[in-house]
Amino acid sequence: MSFFSTDFTLGILGGGQLGKMLLSQTLKWDIRTLVLDPSAEAPARLGCNAFFQGDLMDYDTVYRFGKQVDLLTFEIENVNVDALERLESEGVRVFPTPKSLRIIQDKGLQKVFYREHGIPTAPFELFPSVALLQEAVKEGRWSFPFVWKSTRFGYDGNGVKIVRQKQDLDTLPNTPCLAEVCAPIEKELAVIVARRPSGEVALYPVVEMEFHPEANQVEYVLCPARIPLSVSEKAQQIALQVAEAFGSIGLLAVELFLTQEGEIWVNEVAPRPHNSGHYSIEASYTSQFEQHLRAILDLPLGSPKSKVAGVMVNLVGAEGYAGDVIYEHIEEVLALEGVTPHIYGKRQTRPFRKMGHITITHPDIETARAIAQKVKETIAVVSKQ
Amino acid sequence: MSFFSTDFTLGILGGGQLGKMLLSQTLKWDIRTLVLDPSAEAPARLGCNAFFQGDLMDYDTVYRFGKQVDLLTFEIENVNVDALERLESEGVRVFPTPKSLRIIQDKGLQKVFYREHGIPTAPFELFPSVALLQEAVKEGRWSFPFVWKSTRFGYDGNGVKIVRQKQDLDTLPNTPCLAEVCAPIEKELAVIVARRPSGEVALYPVVEMEFHPEANQVEYVLCPARIPLSVSEKAQQIALQVAEAFGSIGLLAVELFLTQEGEIWVNEVAPRPHNSGHYSIEASYTSQFEQHLRAILDLPLGSPKSKVAGVMVNLVGAEGYAGDVIYEHIEEVLALEGVTPHIYGKRQTRPFRKMGHITITHPDIETARAIAQKVKETIAVVSKQ
Repeated sequence: MSFFSTDFTLGILGGGQLGKMLLSQTLKWDIRTLVLDPSAEAPARLGCNAFFQGDLMDYDTVYRFGKQVDLLTFEIENVNVDALERLESEGVRVFPTPKSLRIIQDKGLQKVFYREHGIPTAPFELFPSVALLQEAVKEGRWSFPFVWKSTRFGYDGNGVKIVRQKQDLDTLPNTPCLAEVCAPIEKELAVIVARRPSGEVALYPVVEMEFHPEANQVEYVLCPARIPLSVSEKAQQIALQVAEAFGSIGLLAVELFLTQEGEIWVNEVAPRPHNSGHYSIEASYTSQFEQHLRAILDLPLGSPKSKVAGVMVNLVGAEGYAGDVIYEHIEEVLALEGVTPHIYGKRQTRPFRKMGHITITHPDIETARAIAQKVKETIAVVSKQ
Repeated sequence: MSFFSTDFTLGILGGGQLGKMLLSQTLKWDIRTLVLDPSAEAPARLGCNAFFQGDLMDYDTVYRFGKQVDLLTFEIENVNVDALERLESEGVRVFPTPKSLRIIQDKGLQKVFYREHGIPTAPFELFPSVALLQEAVKEGRWSFPFVWKSTRFGYDGNGVKIVRQKQDLDTLPNTPCLAEVCAPIEKELAVIVARRPSGEVALYPVVEMEFHPEANQVEYVLCPARIPLSVSEKAQQIALQVAEAFGSIGLLAVELFLTQEGEIWVNEVAPRPHNSGHYSIEASYTSQFEQHLRAILDLPLGSPKSKVAGVMVNLVGAEGYAGDVIYEHIEEVLALEGVTPHIYGKRQTRPFRKMGHITITHPDIETARAIAQKVKETIAVVSKQ
């Protein structure tokens, strides 16, 4: 089957920044692409062959969209999986597979999956409700602090909380949830695995994620991670184990904890291009977006190696600002060495909203990290007052 | 002035592959962009905020298009300069400037410009008609072989011919033209110069162009060129001299001959992103398209240095094929190391039509060149029979 300048049609569920960056790849290869997103202002409304506005959780909307394409992928996990399964049964290819997405959508199922496959992860217990979790605490089965996670539809720190005291418990929404041991975190790492239907696999280098202390959002991503080779090999081996266990097709971003004892625990996975792989657009021989496309189209995978070191800085809306966005001091940032801003195309900023990212490339990772800090200290995502 | 996610509007005259690759940059920065092109099927119809179909040589069409934008640029030289001048006089910024475009559009004026500015170029003589050129040959002022160039609207080998014998003269169109000494070419080189309104300049490394012997089209572009440092410095210095002489704003691609005697002659220039700079998308810290945008927006220029060596292979339609394009054996090419195809999005192939290009990146230029050869020998741009 030929994909390049033909009638072959790819559908993307979700038109956020990940969809937009995937489109830069479909444009490069002239692959016909349709996008579905609830917002008429979605970043990926431009660059596709046709844009559809609609609810990604609505069965009929997703089903009807999927019937127009040859291959369906998604840039967000919160989509209607029932519709995906029906589409798959009717011959539309859906990658990543609905089967793996169903497990990943539910943090409880995901944790059980790791346990069943002998994949190291933080010890946990599932609870059908917060009331039962409170009981477990009362009975002394769980003691503070521990991590609470809603099992459904959390992202970017939503639906995740460190429970430090009894009062924290009272603020939790009463949904199915899990309690998880607070990992004694030395560093947070991630590995992106690309896998084709044929089974060919490409493993990206291990990256290191530095978190913003308050917003619980990634502030810097560094590639390569500043860790010993033995740790890096172990992290890659565990990421590969996870991808093989899922029978993953397309990208699987595996988020990991390096514990203070030197163990690697799987935190969670995302079956799509991932914030931790944005550095690859500038730093890698094959960007994660190109790689995702190669993988789901069952084309030979590209080299996941890096040309140079890369550090990514997330651009999030500054606290205290909401409204028409202004990227203050971006000119000063552009004057720094090896700096490439990505502006996602959201007109409105609000505190901690992901508005863009900036990649810094340099032969030396420490220099790149120093420039990244400068970038972070210089730019401000604000609004007209 | 803020450009990122604002109402600021950039206009691009021409919607071919250069326009399309420029859009990948405006998308990355969320800069609002309008495109004008005569063809409804233009590669850059996707990825802009609005696409207009119209004649680039028509005064009213260009003028009306230009009145909708804050800044106007072009990806092709054959546009109506009178309209650009009026727009400029009415406050629309036009970069590169209409003044330099007027000189560059006319190969005769261009050559005179080099002579007047002490810029080395092949000796030449202007003729208002072919008849007068024939007379000059008869009088012995010009002897075979020499280069004939139509002074207006030639590109990619159109309007350029090596005149080897009397019969060749008889086939020439009767337009204003020039005769030029056949340069004793050792290598063809190019240097891309970026220049801001403020005068800041960035010089890309010297690249080497290898031509297809029959089609007179570039087959490979290599960065860095395999030449001694002294030659490379001289080539950059002459390119800079040309850009300063033009007062160039945006990109100026300077095509050069390295003669067998080691001299550098300016062949011609293009005031826009250029085929010889496509390698920069994958190999450079700042791609030529990002650099053009930085320059015309008067933003700080990015580093023109390379992360790794790059070789570009042009994908042109194979002889004997016309119709719906097929990129034969592209899967084998994708399996090679460090290979990135760019498919321009032209549905119809025909002999020697520029359909795409493939960039090969590698730390070592000779290895990249060897892989490029493999690419060239593997892929075929054909059509259904």
